[in-house]
Amino acid sequence: MFVLGIDPGLTRTGYGIIEASGSAETAIAAGVIRTRPDRPVGERFVELARDLRSVVDEYRPSAAAIEQVFVNNNRHTAISVARASGIVLLILSEYGLETAEYTPSAVKMALTGSGVADKQQMQRVVAMRLGLPAAPKPADAADALAVALCHLQHRTLQTRIS
Amino acid sequence: MFVLGIDPGLTRTGYGIIEASGSAETAIAAGVIRTRPDRPVGERFVELARDLRSVVDEYRPSAAAIEQVFVNNNRHTAISVARASGIVLLILSEYGLETAEYTPSAVKMALTGSGVADKQQMQRVVAMRLGLPAAPKPADAADALAVALCHLQHRTLQTRIS
Repeated sequence: MFVLGIDPGLTRTGYGIIEASGSAETAIAAGVIRTRPDRPVGERFVELARDLRSVVDEYRPSAAAIEQVFVNNNRHTAISVARASGIVLLILSEYGLETAEYTPSAVKMALTGSGVADKQQMQRVVAMRLGLPAAPKPADAADALAVALCHLQHRTLQTRIS
Repeated sequence: MFVLGIDPGLTRTGYGIIEASGSAETAIAAGVIRTRPDRPVGERFVELARDLRSVVDEYRPSAAAIEQVFVNNNRHTAISVARASGIVLLILSEYGLETAEYTPSAVKMALTGSGVADKQQMQRVVAMRLGLPAAPKPADAADALAVALCHLQHRTLQTRIS
């Protein structure tokens, strides 16, 4: 089963695909969808939607999860990430993919046991769990793999409970 | 020329179509796209996208404008409106429509000369300018017509300047 994790953003949207087979988790792909900062925002959304559709077409995941928008003090950035996340949710739903959302601290908690783990620690855990020499770069791709791992963990837990 | 105005939201997205011919402005359509509150958010975005595509297919506007997200104290609502507005921008851009954005106060200023005009005053101006007995209901439809009128006014001004 392929699980798609997404860390949405207007300039960079990280994506990661993990194959889960029994208790084995393997990284299948990780990358970043970029949009051109010098283009009008609507055009950038078209680029994001098109490239995300390509990723889904290529890997055909059966589950998906995205990192929830974190509303901090930079409201302008929050609005921009929220718009990108809306587009990601739309595209995944158009493919019939049910998409879970996790806050950044929920992802950290799931992977490290601490909701305030720093980026380095998160990247180490992602690399270790997936048996990679290092976490993929840029950070958005590693973040997306972390969201996918978090989702797998929650699914496994739910299956055990029910 | 048909101008499409949009007041985006997750539960209700207002839309209005105005035909501009010389200095005459005529309301062609106004309505609301609703999504089902009991459905998962991704599914609601699919409903919004599908219904907005129908509106564009039916009226084939040649210009569009949306009301910008106003970040007030309710951050949860702001995120939800931002996501809807991202989807609206995506769909309009996929149709090749350049889409202007105006803040709520810019729309009020353009129509009433005051950036703090109240809803009743705005609805009276919309009705008067379009020769309607009353502003269309619900308010989101009237707000969308206001955005379209604001955009027409800005376009006319820009044409006169250049």
